[in-house]
Amino acid sequence: MTAPYVHGHGAREAERLRDQADTLSALIHDGTRYPVGHAVLEAGCGTGAQTVSLARNNPGSWITSVDRAADSLALAQARVEQAGFANVTFRQADLDALPFPPASFDHVFVCFVLEHLPDPAATLAALARVLRPGGSLTVVEGDHGTVCLHPHSDAAHRAVGCLVELQRRAGGDALIGRRLHPLLTAAGFADVDVSARTVHAVGGRPGLADTFTRKTFTAMVDGVRDTAVADGLASASDFAAGVRDLDRAADTGGVFVYTFFKGTAVKP
Amino acid sequence: MTAPYVHGHGAREAERLRDQADTLSALIHDGTRYPVGHAVLEAGCGTGAQTVSLARNNPGSWITSVDRAADSLALAQARVEQAGFANVTFRQADLDALPFPPASFDHVFVCFVLEHLPDPAATLAALARVLRPGGSLTVVEGDHGTVCLHPHSDAAHRAVGCLVELQRRAGGDALIGRRLHPLLTAAGFADVDVSARTVHAVGGRPGLADTFTRKTFTAMVDGVRDTAVADGLASASDFAAGVRDLDRAADTGGVFVYTFFKGTAVKP
Repeated sequence: MTAPYVHGHGAREAERLRDQADTLSALIHDGTRYPVGHAVLEAGCGTGAQTVSLARNNPGSWITSVDRAADSLALAQARVEQAGFANVTFRQADLDALPFPPASFDHVFVCFVLEHLPDPAATLAALARVLRPGGSLTVVEGDHGTVCLHPHSDAAHRAVGCLVELQRRAGGDALIGRRLHPLLTAAGFADVDVSARTVHAVGGRPGLADTFTRKTFTAMVDGVRDTAVADGLASASDFAAGVRDLDRAADTGGVFVYTFFKGTAVKP
Repeated sequence: MTAPYVHGHGAREAERLRDQADTLSALIHDGTRYPVGHAVLEAGCGTGAQTVSLARNNPGSWITSVDRAADSLALAQARVEQAGFANVTFRQADLDALPFPPASFDHVFVCFVLEHLPDPAATLAALARVLRPGGSLTVVEGDHGTVCLHPHSDAAHRAVGCLVELQRRAGGDALIGRRLHPLLTAAGFADVDVSARTVHAVGGRPGLADTFTRKTFTAMVDGVRDTAVADGLASASDFAAGVRDLDRAADTGGVFVYTFFKGTAVKP
């Protein structure tokens, strides 16, 4: 897990993740409600974008949120404290070397994490170790191959392709959503169930067009502009055209479609 | 509306449409329930693949199903009679020249039709004419640009691209799903609402992998093989590889993802 985090850790990135969480919270967290008194591990909480939703939706659960990055963890802790939740404990840890005994948790929640890992199967095995038999695993991931926009733009798809390629070079997989089911199955989990959760953001309307199309997805692609151009993956003008076309899908008459995948499974 | 129907009218095609309807009925028809006594126009019923679901779900409605193709209409009528429904009247008609007075219907239902039309906006206007003020329009379309499969295959995407191109040459648009919202809005409808309905077909399982991935989508792509090769859009071997890879997504370990779009709107 020494791969660099492709999206960076700047302030704009923190804002992007916060926008993403606020907008997509219902889509992502629908169905994730844990019983009172259960112990939940949030594996890879980052800056706490999902932690607040987890804490809000599961006020009776004991949530432990871990991340390997101390600066992200500090931001997550501050955010959760500011939101007034007292049911979350933070701990710095690597997902492949979790400092917990076997079967420590009733549930594990992992969101937008596996996409960044060089060996997601190994990480799933590490997570299974700290999960009690009968406990549940929930995994949420996107898949940039599901991007679909109106007006269609080859340049936009090429710019998205640069992000996919850079994430691949960093050891990750931005197309991981589609293979959640085989990954969870191969990792030995039972009762694997994956649902596709598609965002349909209508341009020119308040809500998703601004918070998701523009401030989340387009901003994320734009965030790798310098690297993509420096690495020769795209010309500056082509990349700029791609970002402009993505942004245009947020305007009146435009549409942006993206599918997230949410998998649940049980440790046998 | 003189464009040729890209999928053909053979027996295999009729079976494909029947499989599609049986499998996807819940996804497509969820939310489409009309009041007792209301008059519903199904515009472009084809061989009746959706007509049976419409008739079953709306036993108290008066359904009029029209199509321009007499042979399709005969198949649709036979299918609905065999299913035992008596609330459907069939009539041969062109959607752009419907033989009904203005405001004849309380609701109009259109499924997998606009994708084949050279001027969907004109057809929407023609449908609006026969709809009473306050009446509802429901439109369902796919979008082949949403195809996402595991294992990923460039050849599969190229084969799908051949179908998209042939449909374009026939005057249609296999990527129409993404622009349902702008189309309905531009046609002057009110309360336009479009939802994305994504199929997530897990390979090797009974159900969608066989009925949708294999017998519906892959069969549909395979159906244009000869034309695509004859027209020089693909080499025979590349097209065959693409179809093989689509088919492989239906095997254990594979995944096939496809998004339909369902729009509802009201005539002001």
